[in-house]
Amino acid sequence: MSDPFVVVGGDAAGLSAASKCKREDPDRDVIVYEKSEWISYAHCGMPYYVKGEVDSIGDLLSLSPAEVRERGVDLHRNHEVVEVDPERQTVSVEGADGTFEQPYDDLLIATGARAVTEPIDGTDLDDVFTMHHMHSAAALRALLTPPEEADDAMFDAGYVDLSELSEYVERDPPETVAVVGGGYVGVEMAEAFRGRDLDTHLYQRSDRPAPPFGEAVGDEITAYLDDAGVDLHLNTEVEALAGDGSVERVVADDGAVEVDLVVVGIGIRPNAELVAETGVELGGSGAIVTDEYGRTAVEGIYAAGDCAENRHTVTGENDWVPLGLTANRAGRAIGQTVAGEPAPVGEIAGTAVLKAFDLECGRTGIIDHDRAEAAGFDPVSETITAGSRSGYYPGNAETTVTLTADRESGRLLGGTIAGEDRAAIRIDTLATALHEATTVEELERFDLAYAPPFSPVWDPILVAAKVLDGTLSA
Amino acid sequence: MSDPFVVVGGDAAGLSAASKCKREDPDRDVIVYEKSEWISYAHCGMPYYVKGEVDSIGDLLSLSPAEVRERGVDLHRNHEVVEVDPERQTVSVEGADGTFEQPYDDLLIATGARAVTEPIDGTDLDDVFTMHHMHSAAALRALLTPPEEADDAMFDAGYVDLSELSEYVERDPPETVAVVGGGYVGVEMAEAFRGRDLDTHLYQRSDRPAPPFGEAVGDEITAYLDDAGVDLHLNTEVEALAGDGSVERVVADDGAVEVDLVVVGIGIRPNAELVAETGVELGGSGAIVTDEYGRTAVEGIYAAGDCAENRHTVTGENDWVPLGLTANRAGRAIGQTVAGEPAPVGEIAGTAVLKAFDLECGRTGIIDHDRAEAAGFDPVSETITAGSRSGYYPGNAETTVTLTADRESGRLLGGTIAGEDRAAIRIDTLATALHEATTVEELERFDLAYAPPFSPVWDPILVAAKVLDGTLSA
Repeated sequence: MSDPFVVVGGDAAGLSAASKCKREDPDRDVIVYEKSEWISYAHCGMPYYVKGEVDSIGDLLSLSPAEVRERGVDLHRNHEVVEVDPERQTVSVEGADGTFEQPYDDLLIATGARAVTEPIDGTDLDDVFTMHHMHSAAALRALLTPPEEADDAMFDAGYVDLSELSEYVERDPPETVAVVGGGYVGVEMAEAFRGRDLDTHLYQRSDRPAPPFGEAVGDEITAYLDDAGVDLHLNTEVEALAGDGSVERVVADDGAVEVDLVVVGIGIRPNAELVAETGVELGGSGAIVTDEYGRTAVEGIYAAGDCAENRHTVTGENDWVPLGLTANRAGRAIGQTVAGEPAPVGEIAGTAVLKAFDLECGRTGIIDHDRAEAAGFDPVSETITAGSRSGYYPGNAETTVTLTADRESGRLLGGTIAGEDRAAIRIDTLATALHEATTVEELERFDLAYAPPFSPVWDPILVAAKVLDGTLSA
Repeated sequence: MSDPFVVVGGDAAGLSAASKCKREDPDRDVIVYEKSEWISYAHCGMPYYVKGEVDSIGDLLSLSPAEVRERGVDLHRNHEVVEVDPERQTVSVEGADGTFEQPYDDLLIATGARAVTEPIDGTDLDDVFTMHHMHSAAALRALLTPPEEADDAMFDAGYVDLSELSEYVERDPPETVAVVGGGYVGVEMAEAFRGRDLDTHLYQRSDRPAPPFGEAVGDEITAYLDDAGVDLHLNTEVEALAGDGSVERVVADDGAVEVDLVVVGIGIRPNAELVAETGVELGGSGAIVTDEYGRTAVEGIYAAGDCAENRHTVTGENDWVPLGLTANRAGRAIGQTVAGEPAPVGEIAGTAVLKAFDLECGRTGIIDHDRAEAAGFDPVSETITAGSRSGYYPGNAETTVTLTADRESGRLLGGTIAGEDRAAIRIDTLATALHEATTVEELERFDLAYAPPFSPVWDPILVAAKVLDGTLSA
């Protein structure tokens, strides 16, 4: 019998792989080491828990350790894998009782990513948070909830003891908060804070929030943030957080603002250091290079999730787009491959959706012209605004679509969408088109849905395709 | 200079073609003959106008005759083309001043379809309506609106005089109504009638409403109709409508019901008689066979809209699926072709969406196993139910997806979806996949959107693809 399948990391990719492998090959030993207490948590749900739309932190946990073990997976929390030795096919594991060696036959690196705070000074002050950990979410929820409204269910994480949060629970909510970084975390946390009526400052270095969504969507998000009363500092560099023990001030190049609490969401970095010395190849992003089966450059070692690159369906090159579905899908495929039935991890299209107050935003593919050119394309874009429903039907909402295509081939390279009425989910149509290397001319003639309550005769996506096709053939 | 481009029919296909031709080739004479008073009206909006969600009948009119003429199109309403002579390239036109001959160089047949009432007896009684005409919509709205609530704006159709409706306006609303036929018209009109608190009977011959949407969606629609208090008569054949002058009774094989008003929506038939003797080929559906440019079997004669067949992207065979987008798209393409720049009309996927009270339904492609087998496939289907959002996020709604694929090739053949939360528009993802001959295995790995407010990690479509792929590879 072969040595175990060892998985490093107990979140989406790691547990998907472990569960799938065990299901397909019940006799295989599958061991998961997770360095923290937490497993299988919904990172993307944290802002909504902080906001209060999700009642309990337990709601963000998909699988308990007991459920994982019921699947036959040998799960060890609070165990950190500190070294990988591909020659001997062992990992060194540090637990409460010391360090031990664990042999593996197959190894999955699913170590995720971590929030970065550099180069901002003062991020180690109290009441400065990043959103890459459940403890942060719990502490923020505790701080934002008036003491008299807090209840135990809110902080019932089942298998994790959150009693050390009591100091946060007992404090009165902050009045003024700042979010540094206008990406996903920034926009979602601004919504969470405004949902609690806090004075909210949002700092973004560039001229629009959510740069991956492009200019048209960025402009719309800006308008929604403004309308919602967010104090938006665009083109503003935060230099430092200052305070005595706790954060008291954001110091930026547009001046200083007194604050009670800060969330820093300026980016994440892949946790790939573990394999940096092993011969496993890292890409330009710093994440682990993988092939179509999630294999790294070292025999027997796989990587998946936020620490790994994947092949982008438009460029054909490896790319780092750390998102939840990619992690789950790659983990599941690797679990099946390790169990003996090779399954490709699938390509990524960079599909992402974002809620900014009532605005639904979506993006997929390559929309940035510099990136498109670097990938060998000659990008052309058009932006249109069209109704989400028949004009006469109640609830019709203006929907903005940008499509980008390659001039010569007419191939769709990417697109974005924003609007209040079922806009975000429409991005899946474009994502599907990208996976199939669809041209704009083809897209324009696709038989999409029409009924007054759901779409006008020409869906906004078709309108955009018509306009871009006109430009391409002009 | 060539003879004119003559268009028969002034609705979606006809006016799209006329407008596009004139825009691309402003020197070309473009003449449209419309036998009724109405042009460019939104047939799909009628139930919502009757229900009262759309205020004025004028809201359902996209283009006025004046606007059409501003585009340089020579529009003649109340002019019926009664004969086509392909040898001499003329049509005979009957207007108020008699019949005349009109030469053409290119001819578009865009005569639409008509509601059928056979074999039901008594459909000529007063207060029996079909929903294939704006006059019916106006009369129904008038009847359903209490006299004291009626206002002129409701019936302001601009260029059409609706004063003959005054008798309907003055009558008190009916109390009990019946809808014969449980297709689109039946389901939408049942919603309209229940929205006005009328006792509503819905008769359907087969065991589920909306047969094109398949069993899973049909069952859900049944539940929503029941919940909404619609008196549903499934597996019931209506034999006759009876009454003295006005309809008073529906006589069906489950007994008779006293009613004040009846809508018959048991099907439509293509208006293809005009060209039946010309050498233009008609398909098995009775609609006009067209090629990829909308050309019929006779040189210089095109057909588009509800009177025409189109190539189905899954079967590769011609099919008759009379829907709004197909008409607009084919009309536009033919206008461009006639103007000298050939443009394909595009293929159809049979994509359709339907609102049944709060339930959103969608369908695309081939889902019926008999039809799939007739097209040479070996169909396999799976139905799943999954959440529309992350389970912990408010508003998450159960969403039912059925996918059908060919066993050997794994190719997706069609799918259906139903649910309350953004379900219908998700069908566009499947329609796009059909146009690209996607396999279920490919679909399963597409990088679709995930964010708690809009989709779970695995969108219901991906869940269905996973399950069906499992079945296919078992």
